[in-house]
Amino acid sequence: MIKIGILGYGNLGRGVEAAIKKNSDTQLVAVYTRRDPATLKINTEGVAVKSTADLDTGKEDIDVLIICGGSATDLPEMTPKYAAMYNVIDSFDTHAKVPVHFANVDKASKAAGKIGIISCGWDPGMFSISRVYAHSVLPDGKDYTFWGKGVSQGHSDAVRRIEGVIDARQYTVPVPAALDAVRSGSNPELTTREKHTRECFVVAEEGADLARIENEIKTMPNYFSDYDTTVHFISMDEMKANHSGLPHGGSVIYSGTSSDGVKHVIEYSLKLDSNPEFTGSVLVAYARAAARLNSEGCMGAKTVFDIAPAYLSAQSGEELRAHLL
Amino acid sequence: MIKIGILGYGNLGRGVEAAIKKNSDTQLVAVYTRRDPATLKINTEGVAVKSTADLDTGKEDIDVLIICGGSATDLPEMTPKYAAMYNVIDSFDTHAKVPVHFANVDKASKAAGKIGIISCGWDPGMFSISRVYAHSVLPDGKDYTFWGKGVSQGHSDAVRRIEGVIDARQYTVPVPAALDAVRSGSNPELTTREKHTRECFVVAEEGADLARIENEIKTMPNYFSDYDTTVHFISMDEMKANHSGLPHGGSVIYSGTSSDGVKHVIEYSLKLDSNPEFTGSVLVAYARAAARLNSEGCMGAKTVFDIAPAYLSAQSGEELRAHLL
Repeated sequence: MIKIGILGYGNLGRGVEAAIKKNSDTQLVAVYTRRDPATLKINTEGVAVKSTADLDTGKEDIDVLIICGGSATDLPEMTPKYAAMYNVIDSFDTHAKVPVHFANVDKASKAAGKIGIISCGWDPGMFSISRVYAHSVLPDGKDYTFWGKGVSQGHSDAVRRIEGVIDARQYTVPVPAALDAVRSGSNPELTTREKHTRECFVVAEEGADLARIENEIKTMPNYFSDYDTTVHFISMDEMKANHSGLPHGGSVIYSGTSSDGVKHVIEYSLKLDSNPEFTGSVLVAYARAAARLNSEGCMGAKTVFDIAPAYLSAQSGEELRAHLL
Repeated sequence: MIKIGILGYGNLGRGVEAAIKKNSDTQLVAVYTRRDPATLKINTEGVAVKSTADLDTGKEDIDVLIICGGSATDLPEMTPKYAAMYNVIDSFDTHAKVPVHFANVDKASKAAGKIGIISCGWDPGMFSISRVYAHSVLPDGKDYTFWGKGVSQGHSDAVRRIEGVIDARQYTVPVPAALDAVRSGSNPELTTREKHTRECFVVAEEGADLARIENEIKTMPNYFSDYDTTVHFISMDEMKANHSGLPHGGSVIYSGTSSDGVKHVIEYSLKLDSNPEFTGSVLVAYARAAARLNSEGCMGAKTVFDIAPAYLSAQSGEELRAHLL
């Protein structure tokens, strides 16, 4: 059994907890929280809820710590810190800061003889793997990534911060014509606006100026101003009934040539009922890989690019070759 | 530069030759043939065409030998033989015989301190990788593989062996309703007949009994009798004009759950203008991996499951993390 600890019990932590139940060779031994452990009720019977102070001793009996924090402030600090004590996995997704994060985790984990796998999930993660395989097999080509239809938590939060907004959900939606053009292998040049639209469902305070809210959303720099955005004002009841899930997904589409005029299109796509549960499932598969690799003497920072597929599977090499090759 | 030798110059050998031209860190140094080398004209200027007798010396100056033979009789003999002398790659695709082939290549290559990567291509190959990632991330689920629309060379050959047939092309076609059912995540049970249809284009001898030919095709055991098959008789001119390519493709669709009622659908699909050129492109990417892994001391038989994605890419770890993560 691979003994797993979860650090942080938000949506992602609960997703990891669900995934562990689906993997018979993994076992959740503790959830660590910065809150008062006594106040936290988790979904698994008989598993300890502990304070991060326990974790900080470096003496917890876990094979892998899955760190379920945010990329903005939590992970840059937490992952290197705990990589100095445990095998760790995270889902760090701030692309521009990957080199620094990788270097920090690498240094800490190597010094401790541990392994630290960063940026696991679906993007970065499974989508990144698809990009590398496609570029490697067909170096003369181009990749496109489409996200959605799905809920962007960052964009939903941005709308919620607007004055007069009680709750909001933002869906990122790929533009069908753009998808078709890319799938045809024509390698189009597409602007941000041509690739995705954004759709917002907003619960406003009674008497709020809806026109102002809609305008603030549509003109918000970075988040919305480069997109065609639709805003729907709905009731809290409708929000709860129709927009309580966190579905997501998308496609990596690669089109390349192997010789003059000989074209190939590769597509990897995901349709996910729950973004955090799927991300959690990826994290658990890489936790298995981390435990195995470290037991073989492998240490330092890794990404999904550095891990052979077989390490993710509970099946043996013989079983994989017999059933899945 | 990675120095590559190609053994066998049929469709696949030419596909590998084309792929090498697209990879600036690989170099074709020789094509080896069982024919009289003087009679073989290849598509690359200045590259030697040599006899397999030269290869048999074990002294050829190549980093990797890509063996482009058939799975029925060539590869079971050739791959272990040359694995005892060189790093080798093949596209062995007889699923039932993989364990024996793997064991034979493993023994030969380990004794020689070489690496032998078997069963590279798209199925087995890229499709197999998709199956392992999907099963590993969502152990509670089911995979489906659809092939086509594309030319099956084995089925085309089978039709050509019928008396009165001059030429034939067989397309394997996935059934749209089956694809839709699988993509919906409903995990249907599907018979062979429900998954694919077969479409044959046949050039018959003048005066041949077309009804007999059509009946012989449709009732042919293993190849056609379990499928709904359509037969079209066409002229040789039409065959040359419309059916001279070897397009293929297909999809691996996986549907699984991460908790009760929370469903995810993963799809990896390929749309290939040329089956041999794409397969050749995969072989060249794994040739790069073979050269690198062996230079790090790795030896023995491997499959695509055992190779981390980064080994396939000409880019460094830093570049991959910066651009594709």
